[in-house]
Amino acid sequence: MTVDFSLPADPASAWAAPPDHPLVTPRVRDLLAQVFDVDPDAATAAPATVPGQSRLAGPARDALVAAVGAAHVRLDAEPRAAHANGMSYLDLLRRRTGQAPAAPDAVVLPADADEIAAVLTACVQHDIAVVPFGGGTSVVGGVTAERGPFAAVIALDLARLDRLVELDEISRTATLQAGLTGPRAEELLAARGYTLGHVPQSFERATIGGYAATRSAGQLSTGWGRFDALVEHLRAVTPAGALDLGRAPGTAAGPDLRQVLLGSEGAFGVITEVTVRVRPVPEVRRHEGWRVASFAEGVALVRALGQDGPRPDLLRLSDETETALGVATAGEEAGDGCLLLVGWEGAAEDVTRRADAATAFLRRHGATALGEEAAASWRTGRFRAPRLRDELLGAGLLVETLETAVRWRDLETLHATVGERLRAALDGARPVVACHLSHVYPAGASLYFSVLARQDEHDPVAQWQHAKRAASDALAEAGATITHHHAVGADHVPWMTTEVGDAGVGLLRAVKAHLDPHGVMNPGKLIPDAAGAGLRAT
Amino acid sequence: MTVDFSLPADPASAWAAPPDHPLVTPRVRDLLAQVFDVDPDAATAAPATVPGQSRLAGPARDALVAAVGAAHVRLDAEPRAAHANGMSYLDLLRRRTGQAPAAPDAVVLPADADEIAAVLTACVQHDIAVVPFGGGTSVVGGVTAERGPFAAVIALDLARLDRLVELDEISRTATLQAGLTGPRAEELLAARGYTLGHVPQSFERATIGGYAATRSAGQLSTGWGRFDALVEHLRAVTPAGALDLGRAPGTAAGPDLRQVLLGSEGAFGVITEVTVRVRPVPEVRRHEGWRVASFAEGVALVRALGQDGPRPDLLRLSDETETALGVATAGEEAGDGCLLLVGWEGAAEDVTRRADAATAFLRRHGATALGEEAAASWRTGRFRAPRLRDELLGAGLLVETLETAVRWRDLETLHATVGERLRAALDGARPVVACHLSHVYPAGASLYFSVLARQDEHDPVAQWQHAKRAASDALAEAGATITHHHAVGADHVPWMTTEVGDAGVGLLRAVKAHLDPHGVMNPGKLIPDAAGAGLRAT
Repeated sequence: MTVDFSLPADPASAWAAPPDHPLVTPRVRDLLAQVFDVDPDAATAAPATVPGQSRLAGPARDALVAAVGAAHVRLDAEPRAAHANGMSYLDLLRRRTGQAPAAPDAVVLPADADEIAAVLTACVQHDIAVVPFGGGTSVVGGVTAERGPFAAVIALDLARLDRLVELDEISRTATLQAGLTGPRAEELLAARGYTLGHVPQSFERATIGGYAATRSAGQLSTGWGRFDALVEHLRAVTPAGALDLGRAPGTAAGPDLRQVLLGSEGAFGVITEVTVRVRPVPEVRRHEGWRVASFAEGVALVRALGQDGPRPDLLRLSDETETALGVATAGEEAGDGCLLLVGWEGAAEDVTRRADAATAFLRRHGATALGEEAAASWRTGRFRAPRLRDELLGAGLLVETLETAVRWRDLETLHATVGERLRAALDGARPVVACHLSHVYPAGASLYFSVLARQDEHDPVAQWQHAKRAASDALAEAGATITHHHAVGADHVPWMTTEVGDAGVGLLRAVKAHLDPHGVMNPGKLIPDAAGAGLRAT
Repeated sequence: MTVDFSLPADPASAWAAPPDHPLVTPRVRDLLAQVFDVDPDAATAAPATVPGQSRLAGPARDALVAAVGAAHVRLDAEPRAAHANGMSYLDLLRRRTGQAPAAPDAVVLPADADEIAAVLTACVQHDIAVVPFGGGTSVVGGVTAERGPFAAVIALDLARLDRLVELDEISRTATLQAGLTGPRAEELLAARGYTLGHVPQSFERATIGGYAATRSAGQLSTGWGRFDALVEHLRAVTPAGALDLGRAPGTAAGPDLRQVLLGSEGAFGVITEVTVRVRPVPEVRRHEGWRVASFAEGVALVRALGQDGPRPDLLRLSDETETALGVATAGEEAGDGCLLLVGWEGAAEDVTRRADAATAFLRRHGATALGEEAAASWRTGRFRAPRLRDELLGAGLLVETLETAVRWRDLETLHATVGERLRAALDGARPVVACHLSHVYPAGASLYFSVLARQDEHDPVAQWQHAKRAASDALAEAGATITHHHAVGADHVPWMTTEVGDAGVGLLRAVKAHLDPHGVMNPGKLIPDAAGAGLRAT
């Protein structure tokens, strides 16, 4: 039995690194020229970022060295440049346009929770901001090295917290350290016959700590649950002390404080370890494509499966535009309707039972089976979008994604409205807005929008800000969440007041004031400042 | 299609009121005499509580009247006595022994969230403690009218918040006001063809707000989820303002602040309304009894069903003692082994599919089907235990229940240890400790212990405190939670430091200091004071 996540041999090389096999095929090149009038051959590589002098003064540096050892306080240019920010369109754009934020003054690599506590103490004492850093895959400015009001800023890279601490085969839980990447965690678990089975698009680079700190959702979250729903126990180190939360699989012993740390994005402290539910490596993985007549019809079918079951593990419904784009880039004959992906993973008997019931339901309601091949191209390409985006961005294209979740009742209206607002905001730039529904809950689902347009030659940052604001305002007006799984970072901060209300923001500030009284933890992220915005207002 | 919760015509009369049909049948009477040497015929009724003079001074009373109207500030003896405390063994015992806490100085009945905000403002201004009050079914001292350091205390009865605000049939959610009782909420939903399906033992009296504030679990929570897991959205009024939380069925927009209010037991504010998942009234309810060879064997089967599925909606495994007690009180022939109840509710096709799979699994592993009748006696009697307890208490019996949850790995050891500790603590009082496993999660399950013994004639309160402390310490040592669904109240406060750690308690205090800066909300509950105990230390 093998774990097949279609991984390249070296996961780290697969994303945002010079690709061996460009994803812009001749067919895609023709499409880009035709639809957007851009020329992929004119693509330029992003200039290398050369960080300025580190601002870490002697005593501050000495304190960090005392905490983790000299070898683990990196002051050289390369690691600092690599930890300047994340992977958002805005991050990539700013790197190209010379508007990138300064690199952190050091990259600090603690070995364990005790060293993290020592680093935080040193940072409070020496007026240093701390940006916890895992895979660096944030697409919302969540790991940008913002100095804020502090004298310096460090990236606290958790790469050395990379152990499978414990596997409890009776309770089916694994205790994983925060710095483990998705592939490495799977490798350690697979050696024992288990899987975490959490596969966000950032899987190749993202880390366990990042999953927890951002409430990650993965491609099988419909069946297996969002990452935050898998966390049984967590440990975190904050400037106010260490938290150890989650004694039992269910409890009525007061508020669930784990849920305060999950999604805290490094603004309260550092999640160092989580105990999560795992399962035996599936005997069977069955992913199928289906064709439905329209997005509306697909929504009705997906909702019925999500509410009445048996709920598949994977449900992903592309709208007409996304379906057509997929067909066009694959060079296939255009068909009518929308592509629906349905998948099951687990024991053979269980998969058969659930798949048979869903298959009968889909057939009964007029869906057309396209077979496993129709899902295979999604499956093999599912981690490539970020790399493709980098290539397209270099070719002069605006490539952005945004996602939300909303109740079923409001879903179709929201789908139409966000598309309209984005197209209006990008009027003149040949915008194409595609969408898929995924992450199906009993009460609603997420919508994931992909936006393609010609990059504005003069001010692509302002172009993005305008479009982002239009889409985000539409989500706010419709009662949808500002983010289903990308998290808040800096980019979504201005909408947090709508998300949780003034009183909710006040509560977040009170929690931060208690756990991080000096405000050193990831300043400018998650919580609006008094003016209602993050440090990097959009 | 009808909702059959085996309810009496008037739910309020069924519990802790003089029963028309005593539950102590001749057979039970003989058993009690034989096992515990107590005489049910010697039972005395509890003396009526006559509250003293209300301490509400004129201006304070005027402010409350201004907030809700004179008709809704009740100063008379009867409602005040009825709101003095809850339904714990200790509450009932103290009423009998004259150690009952003073009644609240008034019972205040607001009409809506605005009136609640006005009441809280008045209470802060006039130095009045506020005990939010729903069904009054707390078995952990959660609604005791503790005055704390304040000049007076009121019970804030939410009975007038009794509306089904909205039913969203597309998203399958219902917005329910906090004061609705379980039966009334079901009645309103059933009229539209839906059910909440949440049935704790306190169902007949408990309220929606109480479910939310205490993280209630019900008898079908294995399949349908704990109450806190059903909450999509909530509104709460705190002294620091109104909270409105939960915009989407899934979100990564920061910490889940709903989880701070869920389980807050009135110590942060008042939950006024929740939007919860509902489902169509089940076509089929199928509950079956099975016999398994031993508790250990039953645990293995229940774990497999809980982890590998298909998970039944009801799973309840009695240990050998509880099984024997049930057999003895029913007058049946004693059989070997343990009773396992398994149940499914839902659409006929779905129930058949899931039940067939579970039935095949249970047969394959040697369990013996006992049919639906074996579950019927549990079903008809499932809300009677509190009433039976009152009768037995009057007859000189100590009758207590306590519950926990723990990972599968530690479950059997914990089962044995808690039983040993309780029997040792009650040595000489002919203790009988019975237990069942229920509320099955992938990573573990809850254990629910029932304790019977002869009441100590001289100091039954001290006897209870000694036994309760022994059991609670055993839970703490074993890594189990202090409560799976009874909540913290006053009785579990001393174990909260073990539950969430010093840093967790610090965070709870910080949240309370922000939301309830004057500390008027339910003093002495949920959060340990500086000495590590509640006001009513056990």
